[in-house]
Amino acid sequence: MKNPFASLHILDFTHVYSGPYCTMLFADLGAQVLKIEKPEEGDDSRHYLPFKNGQSGYFMYLNRNKKSMTLNLKSKEGKRIVLYLIKRSDIVVENFSPGTMKKLGLDYKEVKKIRPNIIYASISGFGQSGPLCGKPAFDIVAQAMGGMMSITGFPDRPPVKCGASISDANAGIHAAFAIMAALYNREKTGKGQYIDVAMMDTTVSILENYVMQYTLNGIVPKRNGNEHSASAPFDAYQTKDNYVVIATGSNKLFERLIKVMHCEDLIYDSRFATNILRKKHYAELKPVISSWMGKYSTNDIITWLDKAKVPVAPILSIAELVQHPQLQIRNMMVDVNQPGVGNITMPGFPIHFSEINGSVRTPSPLLGENNEEILKNILHYDEKTVQKLKKEKII
Amino acid sequence: MKNPFASLHILDFTHVYSGPYCTMLFADLGAQVLKIEKPEEGDDSRHYLPFKNGQSGYFMYLNRNKKSMTLNLKSKEGKRIVLYLIKRSDIVVENFSPGTMKKLGLDYKEVKKIRPNIIYASISGFGQSGPLCGKPAFDIVAQAMGGMMSITGFPDRPPVKCGASISDANAGIHAAFAIMAALYNREKTGKGQYIDVAMMDTTVSILENYVMQYTLNGIVPKRNGNEHSASAPFDAYQTKDNYVVIATGSNKLFERLIKVMHCEDLIYDSRFATNILRKKHYAELKPVISSWMGKYSTNDIITWLDKAKVPVAPILSIAELVQHPQLQIRNMMVDVNQPGVGNITMPGFPIHFSEINGSVRTPSPLLGENNEEILKNILHYDEKTVQKLKKEKII
Repeated sequence: MKNPFASLHILDFTHVYSGPYCTMLFADLGAQVLKIEKPEEGDDSRHYLPFKNGQSGYFMYLNRNKKSMTLNLKSKEGKRIVLYLIKRSDIVVENFSPGTMKKLGLDYKEVKKIRPNIIYASISGFGQSGPLCGKPAFDIVAQAMGGMMSITGFPDRPPVKCGASISDANAGIHAAFAIMAALYNREKTGKGQYIDVAMMDTTVSILENYVMQYTLNGIVPKRNGNEHSASAPFDAYQTKDNYVVIATGSNKLFERLIKVMHCEDLIYDSRFATNILRKKHYAELKPVISSWMGKYSTNDIITWLDKAKVPVAPILSIAELVQHPQLQIRNMMVDVNQPGVGNITMPGFPIHFSEINGSVRTPSPLLGENNEEILKNILHYDEKTVQKLKKEKII
Repeated sequence: MKNPFASLHILDFTHVYSGPYCTMLFADLGAQVLKIEKPEEGDDSRHYLPFKNGQSGYFMYLNRNKKSMTLNLKSKEGKRIVLYLIKRSDIVVENFSPGTMKKLGLDYKEVKKIRPNIIYASISGFGQSGPLCGKPAFDIVAQAMGGMMSITGFPDRPPVKCGASISDANAGIHAAFAIMAALYNREKTGKGQYIDVAMMDTTVSILENYVMQYTLNGIVPKRNGNEHSASAPFDAYQTKDNYVVIATGSNKLFERLIKVMHCEDLIYDSRFATNILRKKHYAELKPVISSWMGKYSTNDIITWLDKAKVPVAPILSIAELVQHPQLQIRNMMVDVNQPGVGNITMPGFPIHFSEINGSVRTPSPLLGENNEEILKNILHYDEKTVQKLKKEKII
């Protein structure tokens, strides 16, 4: 059966992370994603670590399955070309600072005139409205202003961001959800629409119960290391040789844990009778568990707790992760033959469907790799015109 | 115009966080989400902190706009009722341990028999295949095994998880994207399908460039506090009274920063000429910036850097966040009248659409609040039968 995503055309004005992660999910599903990049430099992330043979691994991961065209959007001819491409697109995605697309004459209002049912998604730090609209933002700014940093880290140390740029990724996947919702809506109503996704909004949306702690009880949540905000014991512990994490919120799981620890008397300790009480008295419970964990190796602890069906895990390094059989079998580490670099391994498509096939089919494009193909096959430009555009740095 | 989401029926077998966050997004869009809960106890998160008048803020946030029905799925009559409800559903979502729905006779294979074009999404720790399939997992387990913890925190301290349960939320939003993709596919092909989303897979998918650092260059990424993996200066600094974060990866932003710092000579310092060089020599650059930051108040620094258009931010506490005008104007803090609790504030719907309306219309349901409505209006049970089901603890 034909893949319905293969006939979706996305014009992709995004760079670095939030936008490229969003359009990557569509490209992996088979959509036609044409990435528009600045001539000469391209997407900033082409210059981001790590590199191999001069090519950026940052860029290669996020831009597989896409095509690349360079275009000076400030030039008259560049603008003409992009308007032509918009006419045949279903979706526009951009993550410039608010106002940039308007300055280029490419905001939703203008685009809608030539493509009325377009779905147009903007991803930004703070959104397209409000006093912070237009304030420049990168991931750490959104993690700071979205509340995530204030609750991450140990109480006796400064706030810390989540290692990877999760406010970027999270805005990207929310935007992908929103575009899919708009596509479904378009199927049902025939109408396109504008989508405004902010990194601050979407970070606030994933603060679990932290906002409610304040609005319900006036408690300002603090950094709590590896402890869970509502469950205990739910923490990381040092073992003889490394760390393990456990998650034993329910009475059933807690009983399993203390049986393995041979501390059955804790079952009858009224301080630890429920999850709420264990959370309340965790300062008294923690040393008992820490002391036990410190006596044994991570491997032994995991073997015993796995056997008892207690949620337990080692803290995998990225090296251990890449080689983990679970990810291999789940096709979550895939090999791609990147021209000029050779065979490289990157994370695969993160969802398993029974009918749709998300996969990595083509490596990320070189800068402007598809310029001629687009100009000649779609806009029917001749060789001479293409060369002229190159010379004038319009492409 | 009629909201196309209002005619979507979701039968929701999820609990705690990943699944409820997924179905919340659909409920906010107007879909009919019917939550099936264990009689007497309900969703575990009904017993999670924080509480007000005995009701859980954890639950109230994630289950607004949904209906609740209690059902003993192991009873014959409970099973009969749920099969009837499946027949009129478009989507089933569950986040039990793999195998649980099969034991109940409610796995995709069975459900498909009575509702061939159903979209059936399972969210789990490690997915429905592979050696770890069935291993119990909560957020901290997925953050540990998904590589996130190994790269979060300060290098001289233990690994730390992201404060909120981001592996849960991230699996939930990926599942929501996947369900929307399957809905679009169903519109085009008429076919439903099975969706398998794992917290480990989806965590690995948002590791930014960390996997590539290892697969391209053999480097095992370490914890790096608030530093960015590819950009510098991109960090948190202590000020006279608090912290600020800055994100100045490009030459343009770096120049703006050092002009504000009156350290223009750094522009001509070859160690700091490009983002890649600044990242390489950050240990030499950091003390210069730290020393400057330490001299001034957070407010002054933010005023000066904002004016110079340098990405900068305070690290907002949850209290500051809730009251922030940006979130107020963006409708990201909404008031809901929760029966038995009164007026409460919670995060709003995180996406702004021009045509679709995501909003909080009804508070989260009491346990089994909609039992009678469903049984009488949809299954046409009489009062006597409903009372019998109650007495036998089937509902």
